[in-house]
Amino acid sequence: MSHSTATKMSRLVVCQLGPRLLSTSVSHVVRNETSGAIGHVKIPTLLGVRNFSASATGKAEEEPVTTNSDSQVDKAIVSYWGVAPTKITKEDGSAWKWNCFRPWETYKADVSIDVTKHHKPTNFMDKFAYWTVQALKVPTQLFFQRRHMCHAMLLETVAAVPGMVGGMLLHCKSLRRFEHSGGWIKALLEEAENERMHLMTFIDIAKPAWYERALVIAVQGVFVNAYFLAYVASPKLAHRMVGYLEEEAVISYTEFLKDLDNGSFENVPAPAIAIDYWRLPLDATLRDVITVIRADEAHHRDLNHYASDIQCQGHELKEAPAPIGYH
Amino acid sequence: MSHSTATKMSRLVVCQLGPRLLSTSVSHVVRNETSGAIGHVKIPTLLGVRNFSASATGKAEEEPVTTNSDSQVDKAIVSYWGVAPTKITKEDGSAWKWNCFRPWETYKADVSIDVTKHHKPTNFMDKFAYWTVQALKVPTQLFFQRRHMCHAMLLETVAAVPGMVGGMLLHCKSLRRFEHSGGWIKALLEEAENERMHLMTFIDIAKPAWYERALVIAVQGVFVNAYFLAYVASPKLAHRMVGYLEEEAVISYTEFLKDLDNGSFENVPAPAIAIDYWRLPLDATLRDVITVIRADEAHHRDLNHYASDIQCQGHELKEAPAPIGYH
Ligand SMILES: [Fe+2]
Ligand SMILES: [Fe+2]
Ligand SMILES: [Fe+2]
Ligand SMILES: [Fe+2]
Repeated sequence: MSHSTATKMSRLVVCQLGPRLLSTSVSHVVRNETSGAIGHVKIPTLLGVRNFSASATGKAEEEPVTTNSDSQVDKAIVSYWGVAPTKITKEDGSAWKWNCFRPWETYKADVSIDVTKHHKPTNFMDKFAYWTVQALKVPTQLFFQRRHMCHAMLLETVAAVPGMVGGMLLHCKSLRRFEHSGGWIKALLEEAENERMHLMTFIDIAKPAWYERALVIAVQGVFVNAYFLAYVASPKLAHRMVGYLEEEAVISYTEFLKDLDNGSFENVPAPAIAIDYWRLPLDATLRDVITVIRADEAHHRDLNHYASDIQCQGHELKEAPAPIGYH
Repeated sequence: MSHSTATKMSRLVVCQLGPRLLSTSVSHVVRNETSGAIGHVKIPTLLGVRNFSASATGKAEEEPVTTNSDSQVDKAIVSYWGVAPTKITKEDGSAWKWNCFRPWETYKADVSIDVTKHHKPTNFMDKFAYWTVQALKVPTQLFFQRRHMCHAMLLETVAAVPGMVGGMLLHCKSLRRFEHSGGWIKALLEEAENERMHLMTFIDIAKPAWYERALVIAVQGVFVNAYFLAYVASPKLAHRMVGYLEEEAVISYTEFLKDLDNGSFENVPAPAIAIDYWRLPLDATLRDVITVIRADEAHHRDLNHYASDIQCQGHELKEAPAPIGYH
């Protein structure tokens, strides 16, 4: 890193972050200078003696820039540890503007997936899972009626939980037992991250009201714990319930599509984040977004029913390779 | 899916899984046959009426094969939901044999990273984090002494926890607050998965004894809860502690390398899983593996100290883009 770049960075920091940084004294020392790292640049500026460490990878030479999707304000935060993110560009050479996901996480959804599939509940566990989801559906539908955007937003905050909880529990199990996961940890975490991206898409279209935020906090508090306990008690029941939950998600997005088609819901342009995440054409609309989201939900449905099936047949998840690579 | 393929699959299932499947009755129905899915093949065989659903993606046409890395026994489990994993090949065309990670998760570790860096504790929190880790180090070193493999294995079962717990908490926070994560969820989950891969590598070289397994279960039970509470109470303290933990990991792997170099630990060939994961040459040895693992630990050290720094300066993690893309 040249001195001028460092000075420029320090100025940026002063401008953007102001006195907060001035009062902070952070120092990093290098124990032993034998490793051939590019080294540190000490700049006796307003900031006092600070170490701008250029990482050996050279990554720190680029200015780390944070882009908040809503405010689009650029801020610079100096990384003392030289792990500033690399500058990422899109295929067309323009800067990649999302921090919450990167180009290699984007994908084209398989919209040819069968959205009508239903796992017929046969045994007691299936029926219990099915009717629990049906029972939960009644108050939800009464509450939201045809306010699709609101419904979708709250649905996604719930839908992103099971993958994360299941993934965490399988991860801990894998460590505890010194055994491979069969890819299921990754598959469940991918599901959770995909659901979170659904939510990130919706918040670009509609902002939740204060009572919706309050509702989400309450629901999450209950649901995280309930799902955690359910997964510990019976993973096959937990996966079956998620399977049915996803079936309902598919149905509710189909309803959303109907209302977009008959004009009772305005087919606004797709948000930029959705265009980048699902590699949609630049003139994509909300209808295209809901279509790919529905395909995702159908994929989650299949994955979770499959996970339950494996265990219903007396196998462990790790014995069957997880269907990874959709997202 | 042709009938003959389906029959072949059913035979495979009968051979491999035996009577367990025969007693299972699973049925999946298609609610509505309008979506143009390839459909179901009902095969009245020994298995009874079963639906082999071919997914619309055509993925199910390939026979799903589970490979257990240790036993190398091939099993086939039919996916009723048509989400059987695609057949993945290596760059040289041979079959990809790992389910716990896929080719697109492999990487070349940046071994030029500075392994000597140390974050000098200045304020009370830093000192508390530093001395807690130092205190934990004493019994660990007394227990393991120079039994590096054993030490490494148990270290990794602990090291894989913080990323998962932190990632989960940030994920829930992101959902609750309807806000972007800045990439930190992904970064922490990647760290956790990377640590788990370290463990998967070590279990291919040495098998843990029963008392080591018991120790891991006890330690995990305490550590997961302790770290969860620490992260809820003070994420910056939690990240600082992990930063120091990783510094110690780097030091202990440096000791390991010394003993490999002076011949007091046999430099065995690298396990196949490590060669595939870090894209090492085919004749790589344990020394190469420990070198890349140490580079990973140095990366985790930087990431966690950076995460702590951001918060020490009064910012939220989401304001600074996470250093993603190392793994
Ligand atoms: Fe979703
Ligand atoms: Fe879903
Ligand atoms: Fe590790
Ligand atoms: Fe680590």
